[in-house]
Amino acid sequence: MQLEALYHVPRDKWAYAYDRETVHLRIRAKRGDAAAITVVSGDKYDWDGTCAEAQMEVAAADDLFDYWEAHVKPRFRRLTYYFRIESGDETFFVCEKGILPEEPLPPRGNFEYPFIHPVDLFEVPAWAKDAVFYQIMPERFANGDPGNDPEGTKPWGGKPERENFFGGDIQGVIDHLDYLSDLGINAIYFTPLFLSPSNHKYDIVDYKQVDPHFGDNKLLKELVERCHNRGIRVLLDAVFNHCSREFPAFLDVLENGADSRYAGWFHIKSFPLEVVDGIPTYDTFGFYPDMPKFNTANPEVKAFLLDVAEYWIKEIKLDGWRLDVSDEIDHSFWRDFRKVVKRANPEAYIVGEVWSDSLSWLLGDQFDSVMNYPLSDTVLEFFGGKMDSGTFSNRLGSLLMRYPQQTNEAIFNLLCSHDTPRLLNCLGEDKRRMKLAVVFLFTFIGTPCIFYGDEIGLTGEGDPDCRKCMEWDPAKQDHELHDFYRTLIGLRKNHVTLRSGRYRMLKACRDESCLVYEREDSKQQFTIWMNNSAEPRTLTLPFETDDWRDALSGNRVKTDGGRISLTLEPFGFRILQREL
Amino acid sequence: MQLEALYHVPRDKWAYAYDRETVHLRIRAKRGDAAAITVVSGDKYDWDGTCAEAQMEVAAADDLFDYWEAHVKPRFRRLTYYFRIESGDETFFVCEKGILPEEPLPPRGNFEYPFIHPVDLFEVPAWAKDAVFYQIMPERFANGDPGNDPEGTKPWGGKPERENFFGGDIQGVIDHLDYLSDLGINAIYFTPLFLSPSNHKYDIVDYKQVDPHFGDNKLLKELVERCHNRGIRVLLDAVFNHCSREFPAFLDVLENGADSRYAGWFHIKSFPLEVVDGIPTYDTFGFYPDMPKFNTANPEVKAFLLDVAEYWIKEIKLDGWRLDVSDEIDHSFWRDFRKVVKRANPEAYIVGEVWSDSLSWLLGDQFDSVMNYPLSDTVLEFFGGKMDSGTFSNRLGSLLMRYPQQTNEAIFNLLCSHDTPRLLNCLGEDKRRMKLAVVFLFTFIGTPCIFYGDEIGLTGEGDPDCRKCMEWDPAKQDHELHDFYRTLIGLRKNHVTLRSGRYRMLKACRDESCLVYEREDSKQQFTIWMNNSAEPRTLTLPFETDDWRDALSGNRVKTDGGRISLTLEPFGFRILQREL
Repeated sequence: MQLEALYHVPRDKWAYAYDRETVHLRIRAKRGDAAAITVVSGDKYDWDGTCAEAQMEVAAADDLFDYWEAHVKPRFRRLTYYFRIESGDETFFVCEKGILPEEPLPPRGNFEYPFIHPVDLFEVPAWAKDAVFYQIMPERFANGDPGNDPEGTKPWGGKPERENFFGGDIQGVIDHLDYLSDLGINAIYFTPLFLSPSNHKYDIVDYKQVDPHFGDNKLLKELVERCHNRGIRVLLDAVFNHCSREFPAFLDVLENGADSRYAGWFHIKSFPLEVVDGIPTYDTFGFYPDMPKFNTANPEVKAFLLDVAEYWIKEIKLDGWRLDVSDEIDHSFWRDFRKVVKRANPEAYIVGEVWSDSLSWLLGDQFDSVMNYPLSDTVLEFFGGKMDSGTFSNRLGSLLMRYPQQTNEAIFNLLCSHDTPRLLNCLGEDKRRMKLAVVFLFTFIGTPCIFYGDEIGLTGEGDPDCRKCMEWDPAKQDHELHDFYRTLIGLRKNHVTLRSGRYRMLKACRDESCLVYEREDSKQQFTIWMNNSAEPRTLTLPFETDDWRDALSGNRVKTDGGRISLTLEPFGFRILQREL
Repeated sequence: MQLEALYHVPRDKWAYAYDRETVHLRIRAKRGDAAAITVVSGDKYDWDGTCAEAQMEVAAADDLFDYWEAHVKPRFRRLTYYFRIESGDETFFVCEKGILPEEPLPPRGNFEYPFIHPVDLFEVPAWAKDAVFYQIMPERFANGDPGNDPEGTKPWGGKPERENFFGGDIQGVIDHLDYLSDLGINAIYFTPLFLSPSNHKYDIVDYKQVDPHFGDNKLLKELVERCHNRGIRVLLDAVFNHCSREFPAFLDVLENGADSRYAGWFHIKSFPLEVVDGIPTYDTFGFYPDMPKFNTANPEVKAFLLDVAEYWIKEIKLDGWRLDVSDEIDHSFWRDFRKVVKRANPEAYIVGEVWSDSLSWLLGDQFDSVMNYPLSDTVLEFFGGKMDSGTFSNRLGSLLMRYPQQTNEAIFNLLCSHDTPRLLNCLGEDKRRMKLAVVFLFTFIGTPCIFYGDEIGLTGEGDPDCRKCMEWDPAKQDHELHDFYRTLIGLRKNHVTLRSGRYRMLKACRDESCLVYEREDSKQQFTIWMNNSAEPRTLTLPFETDDWRDALSGNRVKTDGGRISLTLEPFGFRILQREL
């Protein structure tokens, strides 16, 4: 047995409370190395009276490792435990002291999850895992009120440039709520819409005022009300890392230098504020002089931003915040942010923008979720034909084992955004590949998000090209694609199993591009079959029962001698379903 | 190369800010596997303009792994990085995407330490790493005022039992401050001294009143003042997990049941409060019905306890708190506790009682340090003759790699306490072994603590035997042992290198009981040589320079042909020193 591969620590994603009664334990071993792993646990103050064993299961695997998992319910909320690993003729015990050849003597020297405290519990709002999000850039979705267009507004549908405007606004969104309801989405994430000189509005001048080119605060409130009436939740974009050069406090520092009462609001390395050899003398987002970085540790700044966070929740009954550049803001700020936001709305959903491993923010005290760009990368690589299904399966396993289950269930899964090329472009404008990726998005664990226009075939390379105007001319919309999205959204919404059921890969191989995976809970089982290749393929898997139906057509699927064989056309897929 | 052994995550002890400019990075590899590891890092917004390389060094090793470390100073406080590992003819790259055969293309897909925020920085008070602690149980240290003795007080020096009293008090400590100053300690940790029916006072009735059998609040204030005048800091014991059965709020619940306004102060499973089959119907410390557990998530309880924490810091200028059963209290409580305590005294030192892996509390937002029982276990096993020096070295390496350097420098290292058998008893009452353990304690990294009386040869098995009265009769004190402690305390206090210098094991082997290790900083180098066996042993190590002195005698030590050979008597040791 390869002992170096074993890994467990009694914290974060390896040992965490899932609910008020249950601790999830995970341990890692070299792939294929362990035949069985048992967790032996009890209460350290009465080991003999409470000691019990639980078999672990392989919850996921990647290139190198199996990840074993068990769910344990300690009677008195205190958990002391160790692992027994069987591998061939060998038995090892993993406890806090290390890897031992003999059973440890509890309670000293063992792992501890000392006490399940509800106040420390990582609780993600239940609605988030049932949500299907739609991301809207207000400037590019629809122009509902030409009266508020900025000077120099270009005709709708023109070429997007870094600094041009097309007149999209809140009224435009209101006008198309029927479209969104028909599509089936039940949550919208809006990129910023507060007063700002830019078209993207990630450089905010007034955090409490809707940009007049988009409408006004009253209209935003009306929009959210109308959304809520339709069962659509609304997320806004919290741009708290930096502000606009025109932000009043920054203007004051520009004018008064070190004497400004706002000098402490920013990270100023030296006065005067200027750019020397391309580097501002103050911290900024990236190296952009027009986006000065807030000093979020300054109590006034913190109070100001937390007030903004609370204000919109109360004012318009906001359902949550997406947090821009959240990884570059201090953890201390986010801990207080969570308290303020959850106090204002216990059901608020907090989604950070972090492009890399985000566990530091996902331990219950900061975010609920993050934008899952690492998943996007993986999905686009696989469905783009640059990865075999064995590697894809391993990458998925690795990603799922990054976070506690709470986050996996409601992680913000997206395939593209305003910061990346469009989905269709990422996949060589091959609609067949795109559709497979969409099937995956809607049948995988995590909260899916559609970038506006993807569903009608909008194309675009990276920013600013991905920020084209939404296409409203029916003649230019891809209706077949739209209906495809609509069908899959409906399927996900109709089946809790596709939202919360256990995910497991059933078939994936090196040098193969086909795969089959399942989603299962106590009531239903789904199997999703995909042929991610340009040749027809027949896939066969053993299944005992013969009560399978095609989830989209409703047709029965025949089991033949305990096996199901499906022939999939190039880039074809099937979704099968059975009741348990 | 064994890829499964590689481990790095961009957080906690693997990637952390050590100060406002420096990020410490650690990566683990199979022991002996990597020839060189380089960290390649830069700013993700200007990778080409900032990219730089740093060689990593093996900071520690254990049975299975080498732990490589580098200290990186990102120019703009933002750090994107990956590792290049050379092993034989192979080169691998470890980045967020995994282990790659080819150099990754930054900035996407790499590890990130997004921004060094001073507000998130884990800062431990500087004095703590210079402290030599002395732990006192007030009831057993000295009886300075027989007038306050509890009824039935036993004659000083009698057999300690679970419930008997000997009359020790605060005046007794005041009377012996000269003794403590002469010994050389500069910090005292007092077990509880607030109103409580027990002799140990871990079941508190009034958190703001010194127990009248110990004195009064004024006398405690005087004691702390007198300590401060001598340069001695004072730590008290925060018993916040549970209270006494006699605690007024609990009495109210006992009396009024569910109608009590304090019912929410505790974790009550069902009324009435009773013990059924040995299990109280409310949560307690362990299963002791007389120690009801506080509901520290209740805002009133939290406010009450945080007020206590702040009160004593302000009232008597307390230097910090030791936190009883701290692992069973919620993290949310401790985060606020840290804020309150550090606001009241930014130099306050916070030491948790956690017997197992404590990293969850040592990330900058909760404790500064913990009682290092895992080190005690290891030291007692080795100096008790139950472990070879190779294993000892590996265990030390493993323990050092548990925590960030901030904690290692000020972790509360103890060899025994009121909760364990006495040091001398743990080592078979062999004073030679004990002295070696003491040398180790005072020359290793971390803040040493002496349990009262160990220094004059007090013996005792586990609680209550370890809680004997301090021996003040000179005829019964071990003066030689006392002077030995005094010498080693003096040595540590005179040399910052022994407190803050880098620790490195130089010689330790399987099936051997001798070892040599060093402590080094930019000014001095110490080597500590130990023969942990009953036979004389000659140890030889190569040393280029010939400017070594014996740190205790001051005598020159001869280098012979680039080597030093020392013959150590059974259980002998030498401490060598040179200036750099």
